Amino acid sequence: MKVQLLMTGDEILAGDITDSNASYIAKQLKSIGLAVNKKVTVGDNQEDLVSEVICASQNSDIVIVNGGLGPTIDDLTAQALAVAASQPLEINPEALQHVTQWCESKQMLLTPANTKQALLPKVAEIIANPIGSAVGFSLQLNNCLILCTPGVPRELFAMVEQSILPKLLSLMPNSPKRVTEKRIVFGIGESSLQDMLTKQLPDWPDNLILGFRAMSPLLEIKLTYNHNESTEYINLWKNKLFTLIGDHKLSEHSLTLAEDVQHKLMQRNQSVATAESCTGGLIASQITATAGSSEVFQAGYVTYSNNIKHKLVGVSNKTLKQYGAVSKEVVIEMALGAIESSGAHYAIAVSGVAGPGGGSPAKPVGTIWFAWGEKESINTVGLQLAGDRNYIQKYSAAIGLDLLRRTLLNSKEIANYIRDRQIDRQ
Amino acid sequence: MKVQLLMTGDEILAGDITDSNASYIAKQLKSIGLAVNKKVTVGDNQEDLVSEVICASQNSDIVIVNGGLGPTIDDLTAQALAVAASQPLEINPEALQHVTQWCESKQMLLTPANTKQALLPKVAEIIANPIGSAVGFSLQLNNCLILCTPGVPRELFAMVEQSILPKLLSLMPNSPKRVTEKRIVFGIGESSLQDMLTKQLPDWPDNLILGFRAMSPLLEIKLTYNHNESTEYINLWKNKLFTLIGDHKLSEHSLTLAEDVQHKLMQRNQSVATAESCTGGLIASQITATAGSSEVFQAGYVTYSNNIKHKLVGVSNKTLKQYGAVSKEVVIEMALGAIESSGAHYAIAVSGVAGPGGGSPAKPVGTIWFAWGEKESINTVGLQLAGDRNYIQKYSAAIGLDLLRRTLLNSKEIANYIRDRQIDRQ
Repeated sequence: MKVQLLMTGDEILAGDITDSNASYIAKQLKSIGLAVNKKVTVGDNQEDLVSEVICASQNSDIVIVNGGLGPTIDDLTAQALAVAASQPLEINPEALQHVTQWCESKQMLLTPANTKQALLPKVAEIIANPIGSAVGFSLQLNNCLILCTPGVPRELFAMVEQSILPKLLSLMPNSPKRVTEKRIVFGIGESSLQDMLTKQLPDWPDNLILGFRAMSPLLEIKLTYNHNESTEYINLWKNKLFTLIGDHKLSEHSLTLAEDVQHKLMQRNQSVATAESCTGGLIASQITATAGSSEVFQAGYVTYSNNIKHKLVGVSNKTLKQYGAVSKEVVIEMALGAIESSGAHYAIAVSGVAGPGGGSPAKPVGTIWFAWGEKESINTVGLQLAGDRNYIQKYSAAIGLDLLRRTLLNSKEIANYIRDRQIDRQ
Repeated sequence: MKVQLLMTGDEILAGDITDSNASYIAKQLKSIGLAVNKKVTVGDNQEDLVSEVICASQNSDIVIVNGGLGPTIDDLTAQALAVAASQPLEINPEALQHVTQWCESKQMLLTPANTKQALLPKVAEIIANPIGSAVGFSLQLNNCLILCTPGVPRELFAMVEQSILPKLLSLMPNSPKRVTEKRIVFGIGESSLQDMLTKQLPDWPDNLILGFRAMSPLLEIKLTYNHNESTEYINLWKNKLFTLIGDHKLSEHSLTLAEDVQHKLMQRNQSVATAESCTGGLIASQITATAGSSEVFQAGYVTYSNNIKHKLVGVSNKTLKQYGAVSKEVVIEMALGAIESSGAHYAIAVSGVAGPGGGSPAKPVGTIWFAWGEKESINTVGLQLAGDRNYIQKYSAAIGLDLLRRTLLNSKEIANYIRDRQIDRQ
């Protein structure tokens, strides 16, 4: 079935308010296996509304109109539907009764503006509004079912869940439901992944729809299929895809790297401390963004100057002088110092040149050193990243978290960012 | 001129992400005097896209298409425009050069997926993308100018402001040049400001267009007027507006609170240290997000547990026990300890209950204590904030920075958030 949404209102069209109703309706329809094919937004303009209603009814099986049912003169939906369906507007007794009772329950007098809300196209059938004064209504036009709903979110929600979804379900006895699975990936960009798929899984089946959404620096992968596909068949292809992605995928249900790290640490009843120079507290703030982080995180050190690196996490002045603040030796001492001072099991330490200043021929902007792990087994890697300061900081924080995530996963795989950007292989 | 927006993408149509791009474009167009007549959203479906492009071109003078310029197979805009305009798809040399340079700047190999981004309808003219890999493009169809823009918000913003608005303005020769001034505000929301304006400046002139853009927790105010208005007249009204807003406005040209604080500290050749509990490093990461922050920031302490509050910034165990971690007394000791340990002139300290757990009747979720200032004059305030964890953390970090900003400004004004949310007036 082809479904269209027709959203109305000057404020939505002008962008003065965000249209969350459309998103709500789309998600509710999806839950019963209906996908929205098209969404049209028009202002409070009778002519535009009439032509859209006619056009939509010719091209869709179901049209949900939202907004314009209120008592004011810019509420034009009933009027537009009457014109589109060549029907007179009449006082609908059921609607009048509803609005009268509503006014009584609020101890308000019935005004002419309220009475207007009972003026509906002659053929309209009422859809109950359990909350507000405006009833919804439906009618058939050009073999299309048009459902008109109120713009007030609470009223819309009640009407959709109590009346519209059951009505639509009764119209589609045989249609299969759609299932969507999502998975978050770090370290493979949208274009690289597309490329890998084209080359390595060229016969990817059409009925397993693969979608991507870039959420820099993460990537969301979305798999959509009919729920009556065989589990074996779905798993076969899912495994092929997941094997290709390897440990670049986060754990199921983890939406961020920090969340994934937090879950893994919680399972082990262990904790992590951070010692950050160029990321300036970004890793700590990402870990603490997840509720419950106090179980796995007690201390973060933002050691921006050399003096503070020495004072807070005990990096020796000799090491700082000999190797410079951006070095393998310094990040190792930062990580060990953070573990020592905080008593955490693990540490993540980062020191680098985020730019735009501070670069040198030996250590250009984008040179970032990482150390991570436990006291007895600190790992290090130096990477050459590219981009502006903001990008380098964000990406470095993500890599810091990902390196620990992979250690907690006991991963033996080389992450793409190490393969492509490592500066020191000793 | 009739203007239509054509938004593309399964995620937007399905309601998985909120379409803030459409609202942004509508507001930008409004600033140059263009109103959007209609907005259509379709999924990543070639057939739907083609028929919408044709239909839109027949009914509008300008169509702005958003999304679908990326490198993956579900990015269909160029292909759909080629079919709609009966044009072949060809590698556009200018677009190929752009994407090649972009990959080089990121030190990435040019993949076939990237090359696809240079495959455009033969007649297309390039619209520069100063940020991302996908160029925009425009073409004429049925006497309608179609402009195709990227879905990534940062890229869209840059393209609209640098290329599309000037282009559209050049198509409206009789409309006088517009000047736009922007100013960032913290601590007054869009609806409160609108309300203040309606009440206190009811005769605000029509030819001085006031626009707002919420960039939570900041608000951007935009004043647009014809360049031939008298400076005196503009300044008169600007002064009325700015007097109303008071010290809630940031310094001219400052885009973030951290940037404003940094500039003020640089002028004084002074520095700040942070001691953060519930904000978990967010304040430090915001200060260090601005280039040159090493001149004003050396150390940040993320003291998440009581033990670490004692160990890192010397909060006494007695104070912790007597008043609890979320208290005036503890944030004072955190601030003093941060100054003592780091040698900074100023400190910002925050401790609070970000939720969802950890609240109590005496200190419910949203109870946040701040201390800030110099060693000799530490100020404190306790606030009761509302919202989810993410919002409380973000808003607390902003308030921490704002409190120091106001001190550096020698402001005597009471910020709205203190007036409305203070929990302890002793």
